[in-house]
Amino acid sequence: MKNILVLGAGRSSSVLIHYLHKEAIKYNWKITVADASLQLALEKTADMTNANAISFDIFDEQQASKHFSEADLVISLLPPALHVHVAKACLKLQKHLITASYVSNEMQLLDEEAKKRDVVILNECGLDPGIDHMSAMQMMDEIRREGGVITCFKSYCGGLIAPESDDNPWGYKFTWNPRNVVLAGQGTVKYILNGKYKYLPYHKVFANTETVYIPGYGDFDGYANRDSLSYREVYGLQNIPTILRGTLRSAGYCSAWNIFVQLGMTDDTYILENSANMTYREFINAYLPFGNGKPVLENLAAYTGLHTASQELTKLEWLGIFEDEVIGLPTATPAQILQQLLEKKWKLQPDDKDMVVMQHQVSYQLAGCTHQRTSSMVVLGDNSVNTGMAKTVGLPLGIAAKLVLQGKISRRGVVIPVYPEIYEPVLAELAELGISFREEVLERS
Amino acid sequence: MKNILVLGAGRSSSVLIHYLHKEAIKYNWKITVADASLQLALEKTADMTNANAISFDIFDEQQASKHFSEADLVISLLPPALHVHVAKACLKLQKHLITASYVSNEMQLLDEEAKKRDVVILNECGLDPGIDHMSAMQMMDEIRREGGVITCFKSYCGGLIAPESDDNPWGYKFTWNPRNVVLAGQGTVKYILNGKYKYLPYHKVFANTETVYIPGYGDFDGYANRDSLSYREVYGLQNIPTILRGTLRSAGYCSAWNIFVQLGMTDDTYILENSANMTYREFINAYLPFGNGKPVLENLAAYTGLHTASQELTKLEWLGIFEDEVIGLPTATPAQILQQLLEKKWKLQPDDKDMVVMQHQVSYQLAGCTHQRTSSMVVLGDNSVNTGMAKTVGLPLGIAAKLVLQGKISRRGVVIPVYPEIYEPVLAELAELGISFREEVLERS
Repeated sequence: MKNILVLGAGRSSSVLIHYLHKEAIKYNWKITVADASLQLALEKTADMTNANAISFDIFDEQQASKHFSEADLVISLLPPALHVHVAKACLKLQKHLITASYVSNEMQLLDEEAKKRDVVILNECGLDPGIDHMSAMQMMDEIRREGGVITCFKSYCGGLIAPESDDNPWGYKFTWNPRNVVLAGQGTVKYILNGKYKYLPYHKVFANTETVYIPGYGDFDGYANRDSLSYREVYGLQNIPTILRGTLRSAGYCSAWNIFVQLGMTDDTYILENSANMTYREFINAYLPFGNGKPVLENLAAYTGLHTASQELTKLEWLGIFEDEVIGLPTATPAQILQQLLEKKWKLQPDDKDMVVMQHQVSYQLAGCTHQRTSSMVVLGDNSVNTGMAKTVGLPLGIAAKLVLQGKISRRGVVIPVYPEIYEPVLAELAELGISFREEVLERS
Repeated sequence: MKNILVLGAGRSSSVLIHYLHKEAIKYNWKITVADASLQLALEKTADMTNANAISFDIFDEQQASKHFSEADLVISLLPPALHVHVAKACLKLQKHLITASYVSNEMQLLDEEAKKRDVVILNECGLDPGIDHMSAMQMMDEIRREGGVITCFKSYCGGLIAPESDDNPWGYKFTWNPRNVVLAGQGTVKYILNGKYKYLPYHKVFANTETVYIPGYGDFDGYANRDSLSYREVYGLQNIPTILRGTLRSAGYCSAWNIFVQLGMTDDTYILENSANMTYREFINAYLPFGNGKPVLENLAAYTGLHTASQELTKLEWLGIFEDEVIGLPTATPAQILQQLLEKKWKLQPDDKDMVVMQHQVSYQLAGCTHQRTSSMVVLGDNSVNTGMAKTVGLPLGIAAKLVLQGKISRRGVVIPVYPEIYEPVLAELAELGISFREEVLERS
């Protein structure tokens, strides 16, 4: 009887635990769900014959060592900063580990030892990073096998709201970490276009979007992510002329969000002196020129050159940012104030369904012709537990865990899922579970 | 016979040392000039009867202790980060200390002990900070004594090039730390306007300048400094409706500089992958949209909406930033590349003269009327040693040192020169030495 130890029983763990339990019954495995909160772990394993819940403190060495040594495989859903700690414990006891987080420099240093100890530490095995790697590599490896030379790779992903639950002018609700949404794009965007490095400072990111068409769902805004350059090596695209990774939002979102960026209201580096007592209206006014008594909407319209009834200013008005409501948040940064307002307005309601969207766009040369292939995935949430996000993060983790336990992954060391022995079976089973890509091929001269 | 220990014999120390030596002969004092380089210290004290030079290592406790104990007063021209270390040594031996640097939080913590040990640690006693505090406080204390209520305080300072040495379209050469000029304005600008907090993100700073008129010298651009708020407490202006501190540049400089800011070329937070081999032209192109083979000047004109012959683009062209010249600077940030180019083009020539400009603008209510007073200072350099910058930093330090040695400053603890017992005699002697403010009073209803 094999044992899987799942660390972390937060909201997004349900889909993973249910998948694992279904497989556990089939293969006679046991699952242990460990969390600092026993209650949370109990909730996630209720009515499961092959799963038990434990209260767990990763820094209690004795307890950790006991549970790790009973496991054949560990899946860590803990905060990314704790993964290296977990990995070291796994290495010591020769246990495999799977995470959905980026490989940190510290984690990479464990590669040699993991190989030596016959252990696989499989990271970046969720949605983004995760499904993005697997689906992009499957598509590009196929093109390369046919003899195609890839000249352009663009890849976009977004955690959004399903059309049926989209009832606000932004077409957005928080289905993921709100703080990351407010700070999105900060730092300098780096990518390669037509063989040239391109750099975009933060204040230009939301003004330089591309329109991304998703069959059946229409147009989306795609803004460039911070660093697209590091993907060259990962994907074997060292000399590619154009590479860009981006994030998707509803069409029109970015030009409205850009107003906050232009005004400086997404800054998280300083505290506003009087944030507790000021109103949202005073907050935005602090970033506008003196309005001479004009209403803030008119002042903002004049400052931005937009009409007061423009889609951008309508979106801002809907947020209540022009209202005389007191913020009531002491010693807050501009970004924190904005986040507080957005969390009220962009709150996911109990019956809301989320939507995960991904698209890869690949151009390549083959037999003297330029070809273009687009591959898109849309995953809708079923409800507030089986969200699109929980499915696309949890299922690849679960499938990978099964493959490791079944001995179908021979690679050892610190690994990400860019190899056919991993991505082929994971993507095949994801498709069976309803998570699949739809391809379109365009021929050009 | 009193002893003055001067720590640091860098370029800007000459004026201070010459002033001190003149006074030393008059009052029979002795000066010791200490530097890590004995050669530098010897050069600065050549032919001086009452001065000697020593090689000095601030971290050699025994040596430092010997020289500190022989001194009655220490003047530190060392890098600001070392001042607290110097101050602690001074406190131990009950020696007074004078610096031209801002009071750090760590330095402020020494206030109580300095008072207890009957020592004055007089900081911010150069130009900016220094003359700015003294002249502003003299003007405002006078207004307050007359019963005026100050409603607006704006203060600008700039280290510039003298008109006779101004031979480039930017009207600028480096007379001070080049790195600080390239990074100027980074972080968020904070000020108060008409009783309201105002925040300006970095990418808006150089587009929101004021025109500052200096009698006899014409118009300058004034851009807002990072933090104007902290001056409220220092100057006793807690409830002032409008307060702004700014930096002066030649008229037209800021709108041209703003192009670099808008493109993101002043960023110092990341390394350009290929900085050694790329040309300046490729460097600026990396921040521009794909130009389809258009010359970079035309591409930039289209991007900025400026004419190719505009003063802004003419300034950029003059810098050579459109040229095919190789940068040759490995692992450099955009800011470092820009600095290297500017250091070639904005180099102060041996015969060039610099110019220091300062202006305070104060509005106040008195007897039902609004009054406005403007006070301006212009100090020209004599040559490449007696620069305007060296005079305006060195002379207030030297005068303050004399006052301390003569027992004319009774204040103890960590002090800045905002008190009449300090600023009155310093400003009076500065005026005798040719450094004075010209006032203009405007009456309004």
